[in-house]
Amino acid sequence: MKNTLKLLVASGDASPDMRYASGLSTPDEFIWFGTDRESGVVMSALEYNRACSQVRSGVRVYAETELGRNRLEILTELLRRFDAAGFVVPAEFPLGLAEKMRSAGLTVRPVDGCFFPAREFKSEPEAAAVAAALRGAEAGLERAVGILRESGIGADGSLIWEGAPLTSERLRSEIDVVMLRRGLLPTGTICAGGRQSAQPHHQGSGVLYANAPIVMDIFPRSGATGYWGDLTRTVVKGRPSDELLRMYDAVLAARELGKEKIRIGAVPAEIHRAAASVLESAGFRTGRSAEGDFGFFHGLGHGVGLDIHEAPRLSPRNEIPLRGGEMITVEPGLYYPGLGGIRLEDLVWLAPDGAVHTLTRAPDFFTVD
Amino acid sequence: MKNTLKLLVASGDASPDMRYASGLSTPDEFIWFGTDRESGVVMSALEYNRACSQVRSGVRVYAETELGRNRLEILTELLRRFDAAGFVVPAEFPLGLAEKMRSAGLTVRPVDGCFFPAREFKSEPEAAAVAAALRGAEAGLERAVGILRESGIGADGSLIWEGAPLTSERLRSEIDVVMLRRGLLPTGTICAGGRQSAQPHHQGSGVLYANAPIVMDIFPRSGATGYWGDLTRTVVKGRPSDELLRMYDAVLAARELGKEKIRIGAVPAEIHRAAASVLESAGFRTGRSAEGDFGFFHGLGHGVGLDIHEAPRLSPRNEIPLRGGEMITVEPGLYYPGLGGIRLEDLVWLAPDGAVHTLTRAPDFFTVD
Repeated sequence: MKNTLKLLVASGDASPDMRYASGLSTPDEFIWFGTDRESGVVMSALEYNRACSQVRSGVRVYAETELGRNRLEILTELLRRFDAAGFVVPAEFPLGLAEKMRSAGLTVRPVDGCFFPAREFKSEPEAAAVAAALRGAEAGLERAVGILRESGIGADGSLIWEGAPLTSERLRSEIDVVMLRRGLLPTGTICAGGRQSAQPHHQGSGVLYANAPIVMDIFPRSGATGYWGDLTRTVVKGRPSDELLRMYDAVLAARELGKEKIRIGAVPAEIHRAAASVLESAGFRTGRSAEGDFGFFHGLGHGVGLDIHEAPRLSPRNEIPLRGGEMITVEPGLYYPGLGGIRLEDLVWLAPDGAVHTLTRAPDFFTVD
Repeated sequence: MKNTLKLLVASGDASPDMRYASGLSTPDEFIWFGTDRESGVVMSALEYNRACSQVRSGVRVYAETELGRNRLEILTELLRRFDAAGFVVPAEFPLGLAEKMRSAGLTVRPVDGCFFPAREFKSEPEAAAVAAALRGAEAGLERAVGILRESGIGADGSLIWEGAPLTSERLRSEIDVVMLRRGLLPTGTICAGGRQSAQPHHQGSGVLYANAPIVMDIFPRSGATGYWGDLTRTVVKGRPSDELLRMYDAVLAARELGKEKIRIGAVPAEIHRAAASVLESAGFRTGRSAEGDFGFFHGLGHGVGLDIHEAPRLSPRNEIPLRGGEMITVEPGLYYPGLGGIRLEDLVWLAPDGAVHTLTRAPDFFTVD
């Protein structure tokens, strides 16, 4: 029986699979292919030299011109050289290219699920790369907490820093600058205060206020390694209400229980449900009103690696037991329109040997004077 | 005859088409669909509220739960509601999802070329958004030139700034910090010195030296609007060789001729060839040696908008005349392994009325004392 060739056509910047397979971070797309025994990339003139010096060890670099005059010729030539019957591609492979390949007589079959299942299970160097990105997120958070500490409170409760209103935008940019100086790429850092904090994905905008929660969700990617870190803390400058304090305690307890449940063989859906029931037992209901969703209405966590959201999901639908090697966030939250939101996120590595490492070192402060 | 529905399934962050159609910048993917008369987005619980407040005017927001229990149900329901026979999708639509849709009896047809051809032709507000991003790139460049000016030269010719060797990484991070503070997202800023500058896409690493070219290619994206700016300048700290000076003059002349040729009806391939012949007439050959490509071996320019590389290309293969509205870079370069590279990039808006605006304001300095 003939081989099939694994095939990617993507840029290293946009595709974690491509970065994983080739080791290359490129703005423009190129071809990677692999058999069980060997793999290669096919580069344009513009990228050829750089690819030779930066490609992942063991991956051979081909120049486009040595294989064909256009993409279809190159792909046809690859099948011939490797005596392969067709290509296997990831689910997100571009439909337009797949149809052109099929019109030219090439076989293209998308896989269901992960293209490189091994990506889910992190080695020690990969865990170190995630931890390094996380250290940058923590440095950003430390800067933000320092700014909140330095800030004054205006007559209307608004925060004032260095003589000007402290906005979500200013706070975010100060966090991002710290990360950038460490070679991390900030990507949508969340600094959402007050009512905005009740929307888990609101990036935050406008003036920040005292006595109200500020959710800071910081997820930089390392320019050097491509690996992400992920960290969330919620902070109040001044005095939180008793209701917010109870929410905070419940979310913290849910996170800690979630982390305790992580071990080889544990079922993600059960971990999610255990954390959710901590919140419910504390009296915090989940549901939907005219104002939108309230309570705990997202998954407990997700895998982190070369992608910020990857397998495994700690969601009520994931029944596949953990195997060891997973890098997972544990991030319960409570959100009530009008009151605000609390989310606390740690990053946990379930090592291949079954040891559980909380990579996050940031303290769990809630209030800042 | 029944309608077809245009369909996107993508995140606003990753897909310029999605950002264009929905106005939403989101980390997670969602559904956008449109007929000739109306359009809508289908949001998860997590994104619903934010979408309602940030969606592009005229686009209706649906909750997933009101249309179906999963993606296939939702898509089937959309066809029913809009009395449509099938979906038209962009070429980069994910193959895996297309095959699942087809297995469920849904018709999916990818378009060849641009999904929203109107994206190529920029209105005045769009041109202003690009110009705003470009102003940030220029501020970054100004900072870099200031640092080069402040730098001393060590005994071995290396640059020294604030008591430490000036590296590509440090210079890049200082440029990026300036842009970040202006709400721009830095994305792969190039600061390539010496031999690295001979590779057009080399990001640059290690210590920078006097009397050698430093190519700075700066292309930030605005977080607020999603539009990109693009700017390249080449600078020498100290004294360039006569050869480098001749290269610089030729590249500058090629860029200016390229800009002069831009007008409604002009053919991109001819503009490229005109600029290329300026370089050849000045004695600079293009070709390939054992060390790689040399001379002028990339396209003269590309469109810029919600994507950093989009239509139209100023390439020898693009024979489609300009129509007015295009936003185009003009960026000839010369690259010789061992000697280094020179690239100079301006951004030009060919307004719909035929007026040609050079948006770039940065000076064309070559040497810095």
